Amino acid sequence: MEEARDPYVRLAEIEIDPAQLDAYKAAVREEIESSVRAEPGVLALYAVSDKDNPARIIVLEMYSDREAYEAHLDAPHFKTYKAATQHMVRSLKLRETVPIALSAKAR
Amino acid sequence: MEEARDPYVRLAEIEIDPAQLDAYKAAVREEIESSVRAEPGVLALYAVSDKDNPARIIVLEMYSDREAYEAHLDAPHFKTYKAATQHMVRSLKLRETVPIALSAKAR
Repeated sequence: MEEARDPYVRLAEIEIDPAQLDAYKAAVREEIESSVRAEPGVLALYAVSDKDNPARIIVLEMYSDREAYEAHLDAPHFKTYKAATQHMVRSLKLRETVPIALSAKAR
Repeated sequence: MEEARDPYVRLAEIEIDPAQLDAYKAAVREEIESSVRAEPGVLALYAVSDKDNPARIIVLEMYSDREAYEAHLDAPHFKTYKAATQHMVRSLKLRETVPIALSAKAR
């Protein structure tokens, strides 16, 4: 059985200006839906907020490989999102990860 | 169009004793595969390690609802994992989250 290569997975931790949280959420939803729909190498984007600190957002990002991530940074919908949300973001921490287990139910 | 209810999503941040990291990874892989296969309410479990600090593990956990998470804590494979890894874990931070966007390619 051929083993598929692991996706390239990143984690973003983003602190948002609480006064702009609703606008930020709308922008990130639009960006995520466009990216997964339009970009073949964007496998999944999961954005959640910390229940105890809703202005703290975590995004788990899965790409087919590093090149797909770099292509994503150049995509028009990503550039639109970055420009629109620049003044909403208080801090941004980006981390590369190494997958250990990525398991989901078939849908 | 009927809107599906959002999954119940949690984040675990786990610091592992570096000397026991390989054993921990094997245990968490086994636990994740068993949970997604055996438990109807476990939708996805994604475990990754921080590339710059491999002993720091992050797990994004998606359950159909809170009851499915509570059932997971009672599942035999979860209890086996907890017992086997108890002495490997240096710290454990569990967070509840609120989904903003959970988007993945159809497979």
